[in-house]
Amino acid sequence: MRFYDFQPAPSPRRVRMFIAEKGIDIPSVAVDLRNGEHLQPEFLAVNPFATVPVLELDDGTRLTTTAGCRAYIESAHPTPSLLGSNAAECGRIADLIWHIEFNGIMAIAECLRNSAKGMRDRALPGTVNYAQITELAERGRSRAGRFFEVLDDLIGDDPFLNGERLSAADIDAFVFVEFAKWIKAETPTNCDRVINWHQRMAERPSADL
Amino acid sequence: MRFYDFQPAPSPRRVRMFIAEKGIDIPSVAVDLRNGEHLQPEFLAVNPFATVPVLELDDGTRLTTTAGCRAYIESAHPTPSLLGSNAAECGRIADLIWHIEFNGIMAIAECLRNSAKGMRDRALPGTVNYAQITELAERGRSRAGRFFEVLDDLIGDDPFLNGERLSAADIDAFVFVEFAKWIKAETPTNCDRVINWHQRMAERPSADL
Repeated sequence: MRFYDFQPAPSPRRVRMFIAEKGIDIPSVAVDLRNGEHLQPEFLAVNPFATVPVLELDDGTRLTTTAGCRAYIESAHPTPSLLGSNAAECGRIADLIWHIEFNGIMAIAECLRNSAKGMRDRALPGTVNYAQITELAERGRSRAGRFFEVLDDLIGDDPFLNGERLSAADIDAFVFVEFAKWIKAETPTNCDRVINWHQRMAERPSADL
Repeated sequence: MRFYDFQPAPSPRRVRMFIAEKGIDIPSVAVDLRNGEHLQPEFLAVNPFATVPVLELDDGTRLTTTAGCRAYIESAHPTPSLLGSNAAECGRIADLIWHIEFNGIMAIAECLRNSAKGMRDRALPGTVNYAQITELAERGRSRAGRFFEVLDDLIGDDPFLNGERLSAADIDAFVFVEFAKWIKAETPTNCDRVINWHQRMAERPSADL
């Protein structure tokens, strides 16, 4: 197996932490998104969608989304379970991931990709260029502010999003709280549950990856 | 169990067809989105995110996303598998669903929600109102046009997206090809593989739901 990665980006990080929490080791290949390596013919031959993460299996099959990479790893290495070990957990964790993606990475990326000077015409990932939309950057910033409140509610009174044990939902929420710093959005001081949970997450060895 | 549904909308349909293909029967409750029933206190007590589908389990737990509802059902009723019965299939089907969501429902909804007169200030689902953005409606239309080409490539030469057997990816792509009609986007005549696959899908009893 081989893992195509780019250290600073949130999506490969979601998979990198997932791999680390599984306790497995997959050799990785760095793809420099900042220099446009993902848009060069060599990488497009690996992933025509021009994104990382990509997980290349031993038979040459390539999985080209965070969801695909993690569904494979969860099934191939079920312990410790990060996507749920029974029907109720599978449902609840998939729910959490969706809400955290919608309110987190989608909102933050909406702001970042529609405002950053270095992302001109890169308002969406992929091979097609889309112009930045100022109103969308503003909407993204407003939505990203709400992300922390939504997350505070989702955390509730348990140590982790799905209760007593870590799941992929915690990994995602942690990655997105860190990603929010790219648009200078910080956890509001009244979101106590986010602050305490984030502190616990930051102490895990996987958080350094 | 109880399934909160709205007949015309694409997301509950993705779950309705999934339930039908599993051969199970879940009593459903209609929520009239056109009359704003999802924004009334009664429904917000069921799902504070103000969306359908919702799957209510016998213990009262509620799953509030398409992904959550289907992950639960797949785990509780594994046969026939619609999300994959081994690691490679789980990875591949999750990948397909993501690409089909990103290029399909997200593009179509981007156009529809930012242009339809009846969706003024409803540019995103949920309890918070967001103004329509004209440029986003145009971007969505352009992206929706590309959806058919992406789908044609993904279908390839097999009868179904993941090979010989139906998966949730086929259900989603079918629902989104139908949803595209809401913005008057039709499969281009050169997308032969989409046209043939769509015909096979339309013959399934679940397609009538």
